[in-house]
Amino acid sequence: MRRHVLPPFCAAHINRLAWIVLAILMLAATSAHAAAPKYVFFFIGDGLAMAQRSAAEYFLAAKDGKPEPGIVKLVMNKMPVQGMTTTYSLNSIITDSGAAGTALASGVKSYNGAIGVDGAKKPVPTMAEKARDKGYKVGIVSSVSLDHATPACFYAHQPSRNNYYEISMEAAKSGFDYFGGGGFKDPAGKKSKIEGEKQNALDAMKAAGYVVADTAEAIKAAKPGTKLVALNPELDADKALPYALDGDKKGLTLAEYTAKGIELLDNPKGFFFMVEGGKIDWACHANDAAASIEDTLAFDAAVAEAVKFAEKHPKETLIVVTGDHECGGMTLGFAGTRYGNYYDYLKNQKASFEGFTAALKEYKKTHDAASAKFEDVVPMIKESFGLIVPTEADLEAMKSAPKPDENVTSPANPYGLYLRDFEVAAVKDAFARSMQGESQKSGDEMDYRAYGGYEPLAVALTHILGQKAGIGWTSYSHTGVPVVTSAVGPGAEVFAGYYDNTDLAKKLMGALGDKQIASN
Amino acid sequence: MRRHVLPPFCAAHINRLAWIVLAILMLAATSAHAAAPKYVFFFIGDGLAMAQRSAAEYFLAAKDGKPEPGIVKLVMNKMPVQGMTTTYSLNSIITDSGAAGTALASGVKSYNGAIGVDGAKKPVPTMAEKARDKGYKVGIVSSVSLDHATPACFYAHQPSRNNYYEISMEAAKSGFDYFGGGGFKDPAGKKSKIEGEKQNALDAMKAAGYVVADTAEAIKAAKPGTKLVALNPELDADKALPYALDGDKKGLTLAEYTAKGIELLDNPKGFFFMVEGGKIDWACHANDAAASIEDTLAFDAAVAEAVKFAEKHPKETLIVVTGDHECGGMTLGFAGTRYGNYYDYLKNQKASFEGFTAALKEYKKTHDAASAKFEDVVPMIKESFGLIVPTEADLEAMKSAPKPDENVTSPANPYGLYLRDFEVAAVKDAFARSMQGESQKSGDEMDYRAYGGYEPLAVALTHILGQKAGIGWTSYSHTGVPVVTSAVGPGAEVFAGYYDNTDLAKKLMGALGDKQIASN
Repeated sequence: MRRHVLPPFCAAHINRLAWIVLAILMLAATSAHAAAPKYVFFFIGDGLAMAQRSAAEYFLAAKDGKPEPGIVKLVMNKMPVQGMTTTYSLNSIITDSGAAGTALASGVKSYNGAIGVDGAKKPVPTMAEKARDKGYKVGIVSSVSLDHATPACFYAHQPSRNNYYEISMEAAKSGFDYFGGGGFKDPAGKKSKIEGEKQNALDAMKAAGYVVADTAEAIKAAKPGTKLVALNPELDADKALPYALDGDKKGLTLAEYTAKGIELLDNPKGFFFMVEGGKIDWACHANDAAASIEDTLAFDAAVAEAVKFAEKHPKETLIVVTGDHECGGMTLGFAGTRYGNYYDYLKNQKASFEGFTAALKEYKKTHDAASAKFEDVVPMIKESFGLIVPTEADLEAMKSAPKPDENVTSPANPYGLYLRDFEVAAVKDAFARSMQGESQKSGDEMDYRAYGGYEPLAVALTHILGQKAGIGWTSYSHTGVPVVTSAVGPGAEVFAGYYDNTDLAKKLMGALGDKQIASN
Repeated sequence: MRRHVLPPFCAAHINRLAWIVLAILMLAATSAHAAAPKYVFFFIGDGLAMAQRSAAEYFLAAKDGKPEPGIVKLVMNKMPVQGMTTTYSLNSIITDSGAAGTALASGVKSYNGAIGVDGAKKPVPTMAEKARDKGYKVGIVSSVSLDHATPACFYAHQPSRNNYYEISMEAAKSGFDYFGGGGFKDPAGKKSKIEGEKQNALDAMKAAGYVVADTAEAIKAAKPGTKLVALNPELDADKALPYALDGDKKGLTLAEYTAKGIELLDNPKGFFFMVEGGKIDWACHANDAAASIEDTLAFDAAVAEAVKFAEKHPKETLIVVTGDHECGGMTLGFAGTRYGNYYDYLKNQKASFEGFTAALKEYKKTHDAASAKFEDVVPMIKESFGLIVPTEADLEAMKSAPKPDENVTSPANPYGLYLRDFEVAAVKDAFARSMQGESQKSGDEMDYRAYGGYEPLAVALTHILGQKAGIGWTSYSHTGVPVVTSAVGPGAEVFAGYYDNTDLAKKLMGALGDKQIASN
């Protein structure tokens, strides 16, 4: 009587066994106590919050004339798990990147300016160090300098983010496997307070077994097994990659640094890989909407590289994407445009505020406040921002042009990029201010509010183009608006909800198998 | 041999049975296909996005001098499920409350100005109507007029949000059980395009069996079984409740209207209850941070009433809280305060921009542009906003006062509420502008950008106090920044993630048992 081997009571359970097992497996997969994922990506968009992500999406839809505003989605915004994260520091609603980086790397609230130390300036272990100690390979990529606050918080412990030399020396001692992107700001220690003869940090890296490469060829040639420090051949004065909007013919993109990292880090024991999109923040500080959007898209392309890898290892790859704080007080609406929005205008911007500043610097070499003529910069303004100073004939034509519908997204007013009288006045004021030299750093409050300490003409133009598109800004600093966190992969579920940046780190450390932290 | 009643194979399962059952129950509870919750609350904060919620939290922490900025949490922000929701309308990144309400009530993208109709102006069924048809009792509460776009979208179908009479007549025919809060803007149909004799909408409501109550006593006296239209005894010119900041001695709060609704709607067949915090939006249109915060707190207190009810019926109560769009481009940072934030300043504001405007209107009755003296309004400015026009002695004392630490949240500069020279100049300009009468509605662009069509002096003061606190604004209209959605209760899990407002409605309709919509 075979059918009596299992009594009826138990047989009834057997009938349901398959889906009960499935249910248990599902629960196990969503549990923080599941096995640690083998490959962990942590993407940090510096200055990347909700407004920045949405602006990039709406720009993509508008520039191609898509009818539905919400039709295009970023890779990070499509991830199945989305959360919101508060970013305040130990003592302020508005964090800097040091306190934010310390929170994200170590799960500890600290003061603005801290690098991997707590409120008492005591070093705190980072998730990258813990991963290294567990046998994971570790990579650090940033589009700004590798000793900048966000990347530094994963390998350095300093009371001040300005200790660049000390930070770069800690990179040399980190034992990590890959550093890529920007350069180091003070490798020779010229600004360090440490006395006496100092080893160059790049030499210390070589001595520690790193290959230091600074050409695209050398970087691309590095083979798995190599411990690589990949310094972009083209760097700005702050040792950062150029803005994505300005382009870079000699170096690699953030996505390429990410792909190279994956190639070098991939190994049977797994890896932890932090990638920072650092120039989103810098563009937002200068209220440059187009530059912010292009760097957000460059960051999203880097995220896409991780997703491509995860598609090959879906059960073993966890990807978490967040921002360290909002920057600039960006919003998707401006008083002057009411309910209208014309993001397609932004595609006419061909240079970042920095690219334009560089061009103006050239002009300044041959002109001073007395010899400068506004007409000289009119073509530069059009070339860089697409903004047009109207001629008499333009003004006549504009008078009879129909008023655009303020309730409808693009296509917009054909004269939308022509400067209005008060905009021409503002641009002329800013040009005069720019030609007065460095006086914009006089400390005058109204000057600061108008230009934020940047080249006046450049910021006047980022403001006007952004406003015409329907994008507003309230600050040249970070703000306290929470950021968005996105996740995909095993254990991703814990990143849903609304929580603090220190909790984000604890969740990620938990996913990496750090039970002690996870139970906090 | 009792222990052999169950054979060993099956006994092993019994040992795990308790938690397997628990796991199944958990999965069932989180499934969209679970039984429809009996009690469904849908809270909509008009103009409520991330910045508005965070500002309210940070204000609460700052006003009590709490050391950690993130220590206070709103009831809605503490809910276990949090999501983000895009708000764009059919044809614009920036929605109005009509298109947003139609999306939230019916799951359909429509044009700005639509009330319960699709892009072709065809009526679309609302979740409130579906709930009514399933036998749920239905309640609608708003702090603005009950025929305003957001509440109207749950019971009316009109090609234009301005068809107030037609909307109120649809309320009378809705068969819903409770309307509470603001009044009706055109019950007699004076502005309606319908020709001939028209029935008064309030009479139509009485004829349909509603008790129309307009005193606190009559509202509070209504017993379960009564179909009630509860009109607040104190209403502004737009038939809305006063701002929470201005207080209301004669009427009920939004929380009290919510509690009353729960009392009236509670019945064995369940209920659907939509509560709108409508004046958050109006405060944000005028860039009035303190008024926005106080109405956000009043809205959160209403949410707390639902949570109190849910504690008695945890397995049967679903609460969803969202915003219909952001308003004002509010951000938590301002150029002039850099990394500083001083939200405790906001507690000194004792009247909303509207309360101040009313006080100024009294002054205008006895003064014109020629006889107006700035000194006359200095005490009003201090009384309403806490802002102080410094005397000569104050200016002397301020010179030697230490500069506040810009990297630290409150406590702030003791002279922080004293107007600086450029602020005094801006306030004097605005006062002169105000005394010129209605000329601010001249259509002049710079005038609009400065004051948004509001009383110039009132908006100059909301701007300055907000800026001193570290809060910025970019628009007098809505913006395209996505909003936050929070949820608790059976089926709440589907509200995690990042999705569109039409998807939010589909999820909620799915939770209400509308399989056809849920499978879309």
